[in-house]
Order: sequence, then structure tokens, then C-alpha cells
Amino acid sequence: MPQTKSIDELRSRLVEIAHLNSAVAVLGWDQEVHMPKKGSDKRAETLAHLSGIIHHKFVSLDSDGLLSDFKKQLDSNELNEEDRVVVAETWRSFQRMKKLPESFVRELSEIASKAQTVWAEARQKSDFSLFEPWLEKIIDLKKREAKYVGYKHSPYDALIDAYEPGMTAKEAERILTDLKNSLVPLLEKIKKSKVKIKPEKLKGNFPISKQFEFNKYIAEKMGYDLDAGRLDISTHPFNTSFNPHDVRSTTRYDEKNVLYALGSTIHETGHALYEQGMSAEHFGTPLSESVSLGIHESQSRMWENMIGKSREFWQYFLPKLSKEFPKPFAKISPDEFYAIINRVNPSFIRTEADEVTYNLHIIVRFEIERDLVEGKLAVKDVPKVWNKKMKDYFGLAVPNDTKGCLQDVHWSMGGLGYFPTYSFGNLYAAQFFHQLEKEMPDVRKRIAKGDLLPIRHWLKDKIHIHGKKYTAGALVQEVTGEALNSKYFSNYLEKKYTEIYELKKD
Amino acid sequence: MPQTKSIDELRSRLVEIAHLNSAVAVLGWDQEVHMPKKGSDKRAETLAHLSGIIHHKFVSLDSDGLLSDFKKQLDSNELNEEDRVVVAETWRSFQRMKKLPESFVRELSEIASKAQTVWAEARQKSDFSLFEPWLEKIIDLKKREAKYVGYKHSPYDALIDAYEPGMTAKEAERILTDLKNSLVPLLEKIKKSKVKIKPEKLKGNFPISKQFEFNKYIAEKMGYDLDAGRLDISTHPFNTSFNPHDVRSTTRYDEKNVLYALGSTIHETGHALYEQGMSAEHFGTPLSESVSLGIHESQSRMWENMIGKSREFWQYFLPKLSKEFPKPFAKISPDEFYAIINRVNPSFIRTEADEVTYNLHIIVRFEIERDLVEGKLAVKDVPKVWNKKMKDYFGLAVPNDTKGCLQDVHWSMGGLGYFPTYSFGNLYAAQFFHQLEKEMPDVRKRIAKGDLLPIRHWLKDKIHIHGKKYTAGALVQEVTGEALNSKYFSNYLEKKYTEIYELKKD
Repeated sequence: MPQTKSIDELRSRLVEIAHLNSAVAVLGWDQEVHMPKKGSDKRAETLAHLSGIIHHKFVSLDSDGLLSDFKKQLDSNELNEEDRVVVAETWRSFQRMKKLPESFVRELSEIASKAQTVWAEARQKSDFSLFEPWLEKIIDLKKREAKYVGYKHSPYDALIDAYEPGMTAKEAERILTDLKNSLVPLLEKIKKSKVKIKPEKLKGNFPISKQFEFNKYIAEKMGYDLDAGRLDISTHPFNTSFNPHDVRSTTRYDEKNVLYALGSTIHETGHALYEQGMSAEHFGTPLSESVSLGIHESQSRMWENMIGKSREFWQYFLPKLSKEFPKPFAKISPDEFYAIINRVNPSFIRTEADEVTYNLHIIVRFEIERDLVEGKLAVKDVPKVWNKKMKDYFGLAVPNDTKGCLQDVHWSMGGLGYFPTYSFGNLYAAQFFHQLEKEMPDVRKRIAKGDLLPIRHWLKDKIHIHGKKYTAGALVQEVTGEALNSKYFSNYLEKKYTEIYELKKD
Repeated sequence: MPQTKSIDELRSRLVEIAHLNSAVAVLGWDQEVHMPKKGSDKRAETLAHLSGIIHHKFVSLDSDGLLSDFKKQLDSNELNEEDRVVVAETWRSFQRMKKLPESFVRELSEIASKAQTVWAEARQKSDFSLFEPWLEKIIDLKKREAKYVGYKHSPYDALIDAYEPGMTAKEAERILTDLKNSLVPLLEKIKKSKVKIKPEKLKGNFPISKQFEFNKYIAEKMGYDLDAGRLDISTHPFNTSFNPHDVRSTTRYDEKNVLYALGSTIHETGHALYEQGMSAEHFGTPLSESVSLGIHESQSRMWENMIGKSREFWQYFLPKLSKEFPKPFAKISPDEFYAIINRVNPSFIRTEADEVTYNLHIIVRFEIERDLVEGKLAVKDVPKVWNKKMKDYFGLAVPNDTKGCLQDVHWSMGGLGYFPTYSFGNLYAAQFFHQLEKEMPDVRKRIAKGDLLPIRHWLKDKIHIHGKKYTAGALVQEVTGEALNSKYFSNYLEKKYTEIYELKKD
């Protein structure tokens, strides 16, 4: 039987689903940023109903064989380049989603929504026992999800694959161990350095409304279009996108520490630029979707660290910051400022971690969540194990759960398998930035002039605009000419910290 | 064949639809309060998709005959009191909605969403020609809607019935003419009064953030639960509800005039209390829906005018206002303040109108929209006709369209037939308040002590909690013991203004 329906029919089904996902994203954003607290139960139900409808529409994509027909055309090489991406990626998600019963998807969405509210309270009260029964539910649900999806070696494989397609527990462990093996000796050398950096010098009193304006200014300099996006305040900084013309970022603020929000803002704006850089024309199809969480994170980390913690960036922005907040910045030298913002300091909170210890935070989470999912660790033991690992890897005694296992929102959202992608992001970022410097030799000079838009355009052309045209592996190959290689990240750290801490070269 | 499915099945279908309507309301609220401007096209599409799904689910309510079966049970008196309301009201909306094709509903939703964005720009630029083609589209769509729904005498009947069930163009004209006949002589007397009120005395400089806190304080004193609702800022004040635990109100502010926002806030909080007063248990069914727009408006108008513009209200709140803004309020006497906030002053803007001229504004809009729908008036002539009526009824020369036919959002939303319900609200409000005074003889003393919660409870018990248990007519009968009678409103105005303007009694 000949194919009678065009690819436009498939696209329009995908676009409808994308609009429903946009609605979910608006409700999710509102929940974090504005919703009054008594609204949480009903909001969870609303989200569950919407998720159920989306799931139903997605599994029905192929009810008349439309998707299967195109899959056959894909396999027999009959599709053009764009349609190939649309069909291949839709088929991949379809195969995964089809395995999840609608009732399961509704249940997960409802539980996760309520769990987030409980988590926020537990975190505020530093009381893991409040959150424990909800984390139990979440882990049970994620184990069920892994069973539905199927896996070869570890149920964790089925979960991480949702965020970083093709990744496994074993491969993640290898990469993270490699990283650890390069970070530990570096950290040891830094600890022995005679250079002592005094971060207290940057403390002060910074009214949040004034900080907010400065954060907005930085985001706009990076190229964030505030006619097609917003910057708001929430408990946990995040970025979400309804479509390339409506992207929402949030930051959290500390009145005593202006850098607390700035790092988050630059990070989330990196994500937001990826979302705004995608094709509005192809909205709803894989051609307007991000490659993977690791690639997404590479965008935020490159801006946050390689650019936002560079000498050149602050050569331009420190005088501006100093104008807004003369106390204390007028009396801080550029060298001192640069050293302080890059200071290595093993601490409790992942989102405040320096570039050297950051990945150790990820390893703690990765090991715990993998063990939870593989049934090797009981939920009730999470605080104990968390605290032990923090002692072993960082030498730190965690004082309470707010600064320990309750600090991140991810588990309450059901995001098991998400954390390792943060580390992958660091590796991709270093490799991309290395390539950018090769192609744009004056990039550091531009940064020093506050001229950031060329970077934004380079990232858009090389990465954002393609959507899922390339897999993560293929994209790295396409952009940099070689496969992912952790040496770029190691070299970057080595060079930066050798200078700051006056380390002996190997 | 016996009925096998329970009423719970019908309820759960209605609840699912209600959750989708909640999602639409969240997106609508976000659109007015937060959405960046480039987001409007895609938002319109998202809303159109959601509306289409809702319409489809609603028309499918009876695809297995479930609703028809219950309709038969209703007709043969087999249902209990609550189920009777659920089935009767669902059947009524079902009959109306069923007549509208899904494609039409999608189109209307999409056009209305875009028209709102254009209207906001046209209003800002005071340029009707920008909005004209969109109003054309809206009128055409509403004419089509009337044809789909059907009507006896005027297509306007089919439209007004959606907001005030059972109302017709003819009946609305009769009521509004009656009103006019009592207002005109009163206004004439007021114009001849020697009492001259000087509103300039209340002008000053009132930072919006400080005003905002005072507005929130008033709303909370009225009983608005800010753990189950919000108060925000938008171009046009409005109230929307996602469910009784998540209600959103907005106000607009003027830095020079503190009363500009206060009136709106009290008004919108009146609406918000109705929404919070409904049954969360029955969410999604007609037992948790408002009776009609007229009844809804009676709640806002009673708070705004009968209570919020009473001597007693300001006996309590003027000292508080004066504490926040000593300049100018410390030097204003209670009598003077009371006279100024009730000053009769024919003006251009409906939402700023006094109680005597307010209904004349409604008559202008009612006549124009009815004539547009009946094909007796061309869209391009709207500004001309508007301005002529303002001259004839108010003696005012409209200086521009911002102060004229572009001032209200309603037409851009497709809300033809909505305006007259504002006047019905005034009549209901006066009759309810008269009853409240009978049942709670010390109510004015309580108001004078800032003790407003008993009023909130009375309204909740008598009106809010019943949802659609009674029709508007039956509710008025139930609460006040007689049918709607405009004499309560006329007497209320007569008494109030005879005193303020020292008029001779008839």
C-alpha cells in the first residue's frame, strides 16, 4: 500500500504534542515562581491530566501506522536530511514512551509534583524524614520505569538514557572515574599551595532589586532577548522554555553575596541562549529540540566558567559592577577578584562549588542514585551515606540535610540519571571552547571589550540551530573534528589553576 | 437498558475538562501578567490547541450516551439534589457547546488571543485602525457563533445567554432603560447641586511598591487568602481562578492617585472571594461554578461600592491610609474623603466611573455591540458612534480612542454580551446588601471596626458555596425572599447622593 499521508501530517501531530508540553512547562514555571502554596494539590492533578493526554497522543502517533511507514522509508533511505532527523528521533522517543502505560505516566507526574512541594518544605526545615516517604515513592516509580523501558545490565541504564541518549551506568562510571583521577592530584596540589585567597573581601550589602537589574544587564549583554524571555526569582535556579520565543530563567539571590546570583544567572542564561537559538520554524519537531542534557549543560558551563570566570570577562564587567556597588568592588584589584571567583574551596553545596570540586559533587550523587535504583541502598540511609561520601571525598562534615542530601530538587522531580550529565557538560564545554578559540583567535580580546555576541552567534550556528540533527557524539565530531576527549577539560583546569595557585608544572 | 455507569463517571469526565480549563486559565494569566511580547503568536497557538481538546472532550461527553441517560433520569425526577444540578447545568452547557464546531472554537481562541495583543498596542498608541481588522474578525466570528447556537429574535440573544443564562437583548434593553430613567433625573439634580467637591486634594506621590503593600493589606482584611491566591499587576485589572485554592487577581496602579488602584483591588478581591468561597470538593462540576456573570459582578460591586465606598469602611481604613501616606491624607477629614471618593463626575473611563454614571457607560457599550452583532453598525464606525454617544449621554468630547472605544479588553477577547452583566451586578449587589443589613443589623458598626470577615462568611454561606445550585433568579429569591427589583439600587443611590450633594428629597 502506498504512503498517502505526507510528512506534514506527522509534523502537525508532533506540533500539537509540543504545544501541550509548552502548557505543562508554563504550569511548571508558575508552580516554582508564583503559585500560592495551597494550590499545589490541584496543580499536581492538573499536570497529571495534561501529562496523561500528552502520553496518550504520543503513543497514538502510530495508531494508523503513519510513523511506522516513515520508519520504513527511513530505513530504506528514502527521506531527505531534515525528515530523516524528524523520523529517526521521533521513533526513538516513541519506542521508549510506548513502553510506559498512561496510568504510570500520570502517577509519576502527580507524585513528582507533590514530592517537590514536600521537598521544598523538608529542605527549609532541614528534615529528611519529611521527604523520605516521597523519595521512596519516587525510587519505586523509577524502578518500575526502568522495567517498562528495559535494560541490559543495570536499571540505571534505562534512566540515564532518557537524558543522555546511549549512555550507560558503566560508561558514566568510567568517565567520572577518569575525571576523578585527574582532579584529585590537582586538588592535592592546590591544597598545598601557599597562595591564600580571601573571599570575605567580596562580601557586602547588595539590595536584591539592584542585584536583579545587574543580572539582567549581564544576561542581555550575553545576547539574551528579554522580548522573548524572562529572568525571575525562585528557590532553585532553573531554565525552561515554552518555545524559542518564550524562554524563562530564574536565579536565587543572597543579599550579602553578589556573586551567588551572578554565577547562576550566567549559567541559566547559557541554557536560555540555547533555547532561544533553536528554530522557531521547526518548533515541535526534533529539529527544534536540544541534543542531550550534557550538550545543554555544555552551553551553561561554557558561559558560566570558561567565559564568566575568565580574566577578560571581568576586565570589562568589574568596572560596571564596581560602579553599581562601589563598596567593596572599588577597592578590589582585577587580579584579586579573578582569584577569588575561581577560588578552590571544598564546600557542601553543589551549585556553589568551584570548577575543581564540582565533579566530586556529581560523583556523590551519581553513586547514591545508581545504588538506590539498583537496590543496593535503602532510601532511609541516604543522609548517612551522603554524609560519609562528603567526608571521604571532600573531608567535610555535613552539618544538616539542607546542606546535604536535600539541597537539590532533582530527585523530587524523579530526575534520577540527570546528575552525571552535569559532568559531561563540563567536558563538552571545554572542548567546544577550545575550538572556538581556534576559529576566533581574538575571542578573548572581544570578551575583554564586553563584545559577547560573536560567541552567542558562533554557538547558535554551530550547535543551537541544528536541534537534534546530530547526536551528541556526532555533534562534537562535527564542531571540533574529534570525539569527546576529557583532556581539554583537564588541560583547561590545569592551566588556569597552575597560574592562580602558582603550582609547579608537572 | 439499565444505567450501568455511575454519576462518578460523569463527574470524573467533567473534572478532567476542568483541569484543562485550569491550564488555559494559567496560560491566560501568564499572558497578561508576565509573557514576553514575542511569545504571543505561539501562546495563541498553544491556547488554540488546548481549547480544541477541551471542546472535543466536552462534545464527546455524551458519545456513549452517558449524559443523555442522566438527562432522562433528571427528567423523570430520579436524581438527588446535587446530581440534579450537575446534570441539568452540564446538559445546558453541552447543548450550547455541541453546536460549535471544533475548528470554529480553535479559530476563535487563536484570533482572540492575537487580537488582545494587537488591542494592547492599539490602546497604547491610541490608534483604532490597528485594532479595526481584528475587531472585524471578532464580530464575524461572534455572528457565526450566534448562528451556530441559534436564537429567536436577535443574534445578540445567543451571545448574552452565555454570560447571563436566560437573558435576551430585549430584556437587557428594558432593564438598562429602566435604570437610565432613574439615573438621569438623579444626575440632573446632582449637576445642579451647590456642593462642590475637590478631588485634587487627594493627589500626591505614592510609590507603587508601597501602594501595592496597602492594597494587599486591604484584600487580606476582606478575607482574601493569599496562601490560596495572588495579587499582581497588569494593564487591565482582572480576576481568574484555576480552582478554589489558586485564585489570581490583578490591579493597575497610578503613582499620583492611590484611589485608582484601591477601587480595582477591592473590586477584584470581591470576585476573588467568590472563587475562593466555592467548593473545592466539587471542583470541576457545576456545584463549584459561579451562577452567572451578573451574580459574580454583584460580589465585586458590593465590596467596591456598598462597602468600600461607605463612611464606615473609611472610618476604619482612613487612619491606616493616612499612616502610610500622611501627605495628603493626614489633612483630609473623613467627611471630605467620603465625599471625594463618591464624587459624581461624568468621565471617559468606565472603570473610573462613579456609581451614578457607571451604568451609562454600560449602555454605550451595550448599544454598540448589539448593533455590531445585529449588522446595524460597521466596525469602522465604532469610534464615531462611541464618541457621539459619549457626547449625547455624558456631554463629553472624547479626545482619543485610548479614552474612548479602545479602553476595554472585552471585545478583543470576543466577549460580546458581557458588558450588560456589569449593570445587572449593581442591581443584585444592592438587593443582597439590603438583605445583609436586615440579617446583620450591626453590619455597619462591624465595618467601622474593620471587622469584615462576617460579611465574607455571610456571602460565602448564602451565595458562594452553592455554585450553580440555584439560577440567578432563584438565588435572589432564596437569599432575599423576592425577585430582582431595581428599587434597591435606586433607593441606595438616592439616599447616598441626597446626603452627599444635599439634594432636595422628592
